Amino acid sequence: MTEHEHTARETVFSWFGGALKFGVGALDEIGIDAAAMGLRRVLVITDRQVLATGLPDEAIKALRGAGIRTHLFADVAIEPTDASMAAAHAATRHLDIDGVVALGGGSVIDTAKAVNVLRANGGELLDYVNAPVGAGKAPDRPSPPLIAVPTTAGSGSESSAVCVMDLTALRIKSGISHASLRPRLAIIDPRATLTLPPEATVAAGLDLLSHALESLTTRPFDERPRAEAGRRPTFCGANPLSDPLCAEALRYVGRAFRRVARDGADLAARTDMLLAATLTAVGSSTAGVHIPHACSYAVAAQVSDYSPPGYPRGRPFVPHGHAVASTLPATLRFIASVTPEAQRMAADALAVTPRTGDPGEPGDPGESLVPHLVALMRDIGAPNGLSAFGYTRAHVPALVAGALKQRRLLAGAPRPVDADVIERILSDSLRNW
Amino acid sequence: MTEHEHTARETVFSWFGGALKFGVGALDEIGIDAAAMGLRRVLVITDRQVLATGLPDEAIKALRGAGIRTHLFADVAIEPTDASMAAAHAATRHLDIDGVVALGGGSVIDTAKAVNVLRANGGELLDYVNAPVGAGKAPDRPSPPLIAVPTTAGSGSESSAVCVMDLTALRIKSGISHASLRPRLAIIDPRATLTLPPEATVAAGLDLLSHALESLTTRPFDERPRAEAGRRPTFCGANPLSDPLCAEALRYVGRAFRRVARDGADLAARTDMLLAATLTAVGSSTAGVHIPHACSYAVAAQVSDYSPPGYPRGRPFVPHGHAVASTLPATLRFIASVTPEAQRMAADALAVTPRTGDPGEPGDPGESLVPHLVALMRDIGAPNGLSAFGYTRAHVPALVAGALKQRRLLAGAPRPVDADVIERILSDSLRNW
Repeated sequence: MTEHEHTARETVFSWFGGALKFGVGALDEIGIDAAAMGLRRVLVITDRQVLATGLPDEAIKALRGAGIRTHLFADVAIEPTDASMAAAHAATRHLDIDGVVALGGGSVIDTAKAVNVLRANGGELLDYVNAPVGAGKAPDRPSPPLIAVPTTAGSGSESSAVCVMDLTALRIKSGISHASLRPRLAIIDPRATLTLPPEATVAAGLDLLSHALESLTTRPFDERPRAEAGRRPTFCGANPLSDPLCAEALRYVGRAFRRVARDGADLAARTDMLLAATLTAVGSSTAGVHIPHACSYAVAAQVSDYSPPGYPRGRPFVPHGHAVASTLPATLRFIASVTPEAQRMAADALAVTPRTGDPGEPGDPGESLVPHLVALMRDIGAPNGLSAFGYTRAHVPALVAGALKQRRLLAGAPRPVDADVIERILSDSLRNW
Repeated sequence: MTEHEHTARETVFSWFGGALKFGVGALDEIGIDAAAMGLRRVLVITDRQVLATGLPDEAIKALRGAGIRTHLFADVAIEPTDASMAAAHAATRHLDIDGVVALGGGSVIDTAKAVNVLRANGGELLDYVNAPVGAGKAPDRPSPPLIAVPTTAGSGSESSAVCVMDLTALRIKSGISHASLRPRLAIIDPRATLTLPPEATVAAGLDLLSHALESLTTRPFDERPRAEAGRRPTFCGANPLSDPLCAEALRYVGRAFRRVARDGADLAARTDMLLAATLTAVGSSTAGVHIPHACSYAVAAQVSDYSPPGYPRGRPFVPHGHAVASTLPATLRFIASVTPEAQRMAADALAVTPRTGDPGEPGDPGESLVPHLVALMRDIGAPNGLSAFGYTRAHVPALVAGALKQRRLLAGAPRPVDADVIERILSDSLRNW
């Protein structure tokens, strides 16, 4: 093979869509949709917070109205671990079911995916977790069809083929990616997000905002090395399908995020945020994320003494959206010179008047997005950087080491990344304003 | 039910995606992709024109290289009829296969879908054709997985769940719509379009341009009457996913259509047009089309003496893209007052300097798209209206009657449509410049 062939650029991108139903009232029809899929005995998976809203009862009533028998598992853990997912499987494996309905945020939908993987394929979760953390075995036995009903506008798990978990023993976050995990149908009803508490609303919104901005700025598919046929990674880079959808998502975020943070009962703002989440999930199905997600896994796994306000108290954890967004401003500054067009477009879409005195003041070439973003984060009440979770300069080296393990994600950055770069980004992210 | 409930607006839209692989070289990997799907015995369906390009031989070589046995059927008819599709089924029904590869334009891919419907479900095509023309039975038995490889940038059939045919005895065009028809994978390689003759390139491009413009201007989902749960039509109207993708498609059309019409060997322009076709197909999976498509079916079915230049001679026919585009300018003028924003955006995207003296001169309120479109159609060598196919004023009443049969499509128009409106649009479309 010649030098030229070695450095050949990729020419091919992939894209996968699912099926979705979006709109106010969509959840009322879940029985009809499940019956049309041939389901007769369904496991409804949710968590205690969502159960208390009454939504699962509504869904169960609609399923029963369509002649479907239901079982309920309502003990999903927030920010689930391999152990909590295995426990959900252990508690439900004896049930005779032909389908699963997951009703909740990313934690619930991801747990339902893990339960399905174990039910269909046996073994342990680590068998299927992405290598090198897990064995990376393909969970390719057909599992019961999954209907996902998100109650947050953020994770996009309702449309993705991925589930993410804390591997507590390893102090690392990782996941399983396989086409068999993708929900057969996403039922996306803005009313199902009306009861989400303000803190979780903000965390979920920051998750989708990070996803859209990372997908827009990740290294484009045609600037990556050409993969061997049949060995393409699931996430292939920014591409002509992901860009317009993520850009459109940012326009909805720009007009709705402050409103939804102020008033969770604003159905129009809830609808816009959920559309933003849907556009991002559909658009970025194969684009991928980069530095903020790589850092977030270390930030989430190494936290030792933080209980996020507005969440039930339990083991210490950082909500995923907060963990991701905390390094977003510093990352965007680091990549500003190589993503000027995406950042200009994102700044226009967010359409926020920057405040004087914010870091990254307009005038820094190509960096005008950052002050818009920081102003938005302040206005919606995002935590102010890693220090809000209890991290200090002393913790940075361990966070760097954790982030560097996410090699696949870091390879998606639009500029080369090494330990020094990550060290600088994490240090700069201790406080964002 | 109260009057208010009777007139309630729709609040829900649906959207379906498929899986696709896009890029130069993607076709080389078809063997690896087919093997990964578990296929071992594949029927390759194509037509004589595509066979002569050598592409099917390349695909067969790649399939055999991956250990897959292949059968070839290369006798698909251009603008297929129910009879030609049934003949393709009769010629291949005895073959022992576990998958189908369709390599060609919309005619080939649609024929492969029909062959699959008949193979899996038995009966006659009319059993499955949309009511009221056919019996509208659901072809819901699982059929062999279909890999679609488009050789035109236009039909979008590689990503759709629809196949369209001429029902010659009835002098009508109709089709079959069902999720089981959607290809399992679309392999979209710009090199596979390089050998398409100029006339077919223009016709296919006009098809995708019409699709994008009709999807952008069709009545939005939330301005339609609320459907009963479980009885939603496949095509639900313009929606937040279709709009940004169709708008992006028009930007590629604007920068590439003239170039590809001038030089079919321009791979960058071929790539842009194929991206436009892909964005339109993915985006408008559930949006739907309206007046131009309704008229096109009558225009295609009633032609009696037209052989399009650049196509093999045979029975008279009008290429679908030409039939659709012929009433596009008059339709856009008719709906200009109710779709000003979409038309302004489309005009910007097409970014064409209008010529003085063209109909619909800028200055007519909301009509600035039409002169851009007409200038584009002239420049690429589109036929000049219905008169180019031999139609005169005397034929208009029969065309009106034919178009009015497409009630589902006409209901998608953003303004109410009656016989007078269609009469005016068809009369105005006899010549477009």
